[in-house]
Amino acid sequence: MTTTTSVMRSEIAEQPAALRRTLDELTPLTGALGELGRSTRQVLFIARGSSDNAAVYGSYLLQAHAGRLATLASPSIATTYGSKVDLDGVLAVAISQSGRTEEIVDTMSWAADCGARTVAVTNGLGSPLAEAADLALVTRAGDELAVPATKTYTTQLAALAVLALGLGADLDPGELNAVPDAIEELLAAPGDGVDELAERLAPVPGAVVSGRGMAFSTALEAALKLKEACYLHAMGLSYADLLHGPIAVVDQDTPAILVAANSGPTLPGTAALAERVSSAGAPVYGIGGGSTLASACDLALPGPDMPEWTAPIGLIVPAQLLTERLARRLGYNPDAPRGLGKVTQTS
Amino acid sequence: MTTTTSVMRSEIAEQPAALRRTLDELTPLTGALGELGRSTRQVLFIARGSSDNAAVYGSYLLQAHAGRLATLASPSIATTYGSKVDLDGVLAVAISQSGRTEEIVDTMSWAADCGARTVAVTNGLGSPLAEAADLALVTRAGDELAVPATKTYTTQLAALAVLALGLGADLDPGELNAVPDAIEELLAAPGDGVDELAERLAPVPGAVVSGRGMAFSTALEAALKLKEACYLHAMGLSYADLLHGPIAVVDQDTPAILVAANSGPTLPGTAALAERVSSAGAPVYGIGGGSTLASACDLALPGPDMPEWTAPIGLIVPAQLLTERLARRLGYNPDAPRGLGKVTQTS
Repeated sequence: MTTTTSVMRSEIAEQPAALRRTLDELTPLTGALGELGRSTRQVLFIARGSSDNAAVYGSYLLQAHAGRLATLASPSIATTYGSKVDLDGVLAVAISQSGRTEEIVDTMSWAADCGARTVAVTNGLGSPLAEAADLALVTRAGDELAVPATKTYTTQLAALAVLALGLGADLDPGELNAVPDAIEELLAAPGDGVDELAERLAPVPGAVVSGRGMAFSTALEAALKLKEACYLHAMGLSYADLLHGPIAVVDQDTPAILVAANSGPTLPGTAALAERVSSAGAPVYGIGGGSTLASACDLALPGPDMPEWTAPIGLIVPAQLLTERLARRLGYNPDAPRGLGKVTQTS
Repeated sequence: MTTTTSVMRSEIAEQPAALRRTLDELTPLTGALGELGRSTRQVLFIARGSSDNAAVYGSYLLQAHAGRLATLASPSIATTYGSKVDLDGVLAVAISQSGRTEEIVDTMSWAADCGARTVAVTNGLGSPLAEAADLALVTRAGDELAVPATKTYTTQLAALAVLALGLGADLDPGELNAVPDAIEELLAAPGDGVDELAERLAPVPGAVVSGRGMAFSTALEAALKLKEACYLHAMGLSYADLLHGPIAVVDQDTPAILVAANSGPTLPGTAALAERVSSAGAPVYGIGGGSTLASACDLALPGPDMPEWTAPIGLIVPAQLLTERLARRLGYNPDAPRGLGKVTQTS
């Protein structure tokens, strides 16, 4: 195994500081978000790639804790079909790391034309997306050089948590402020699990990655990272969709990686799913889920010590470490996967 | 290669008749749907598995052609989090083949409690879902015995097309009525492509399946079928999400299967994607897309002769044939994949 480190690994380590800067910057905007909330009824996320996975987190968070319908837009309706949709009363939240992906900028502008109020979540200060929005939540991740998004992703999640608080979520802001320290703790003592899991995944062609509720976002993002940097056939699926067919795909060479917070309503079902995968003869690995999930898995990476609603900000960190380690173990450069650039233009 | 046929293959062949019965039954309901439309503003789909892929079709169709926001619900909000969300002005459309999946029945009932009007799309006449909805679109697929959904899926799509017409879509009902004949024609002369593509896919561990706009639903459903019946690591991805990372995963052993209608605004982009996959050194196969897509692919299965908006009802048929053939080629019984039953309970 190579011992050279990567830019991606350094950027993973920068997350506690990036999150502190971002929360300092964005927390004062909860009042302005509350104003926008009063003039709207529901949230529509506009995003692609990692940002789309962040939107999944935001969608569960707002619906579970802020009483507000929050779903994902289909940007092609704007950019490919050029159709108008009634968006009166909608708060359109566009998420783009760079703030320069044309498809996202164009779709947010379309949403405004259709009657929506707009919020941008971006790391691009002064970017077209930040400039065009009614309100911009500009994350403070700093420059991100590795192609796989890490600190721009977790700071997006933090921005969405601030959005939820601004829109009146029944949650304790102190728990959000505790996130950077909890991730620092996780990074300080990652244990041997990451190395061991990378060894076990090195020979397999594919894996199913699953989670439920808030943690579904983490499963999708972990699957995306493993696909883009390790070329693993990683299939990110919700708990329920996994049981509707794809459970057939797990076998000795197709393990399941299950993600859950250390507590909360999705943990028992995730542990039960681990047992079901095991009884189908497939290896099952955990990320988070405390001792409940670990005891049902062949191997589990400890997750952060956070309540369920902030857990996805920390749960992705072991998956980032795993991706970086597995890529190097397979002889790939995690910083520059084949065929990818930093800003993706899709329109 | 085995020459035994399967129940799945017979049920694929029954689709023209199932669609005719379904359209005869549901077309008279457009007036009642129009009534519901006038009392609501937007659509929220509630579904899992194949039905969720049908919902993706409905979502694009309503947004591109009926001027109405149409997005997908997260059933866990109701069943796992037990949270209330403001659904005033929402038309909740719950889709379930059996009409007996508790998670879907419970989520539709939750939506009604949250203020939504409700429509059920189900093959289960007299099922709890059909009974509980304000209006039931009961498809007439007949009994489906093979575990992989075929005729219950395409009749769901037909029901959603009727829903779109009822909600005022700018589309010609005659084009929907022409669908059964076009599928019959496709089934009468499938060509050798299905056999040939099954041969090429037999040795690969995984594939990316992609499509854009309306055809994205077909890509997701084809990927689901290939996962559940052939245990292929089939990754269903939208065109844009594929470019945001997972494009790295295609290689000589990981082909792309691209789906498009024979015409319409997504065809040029899909053909360009085929060229990009090819230039990355990966095999690329097409389903539909006429000569434009075929000429950019190593091999393409002809799609139905239908306009873009109805094309997904027919485009899935070559993928169903491919799934059934590939499963048998690999020595699996397509009618009864490992680990799956006909009605999935996930709550």
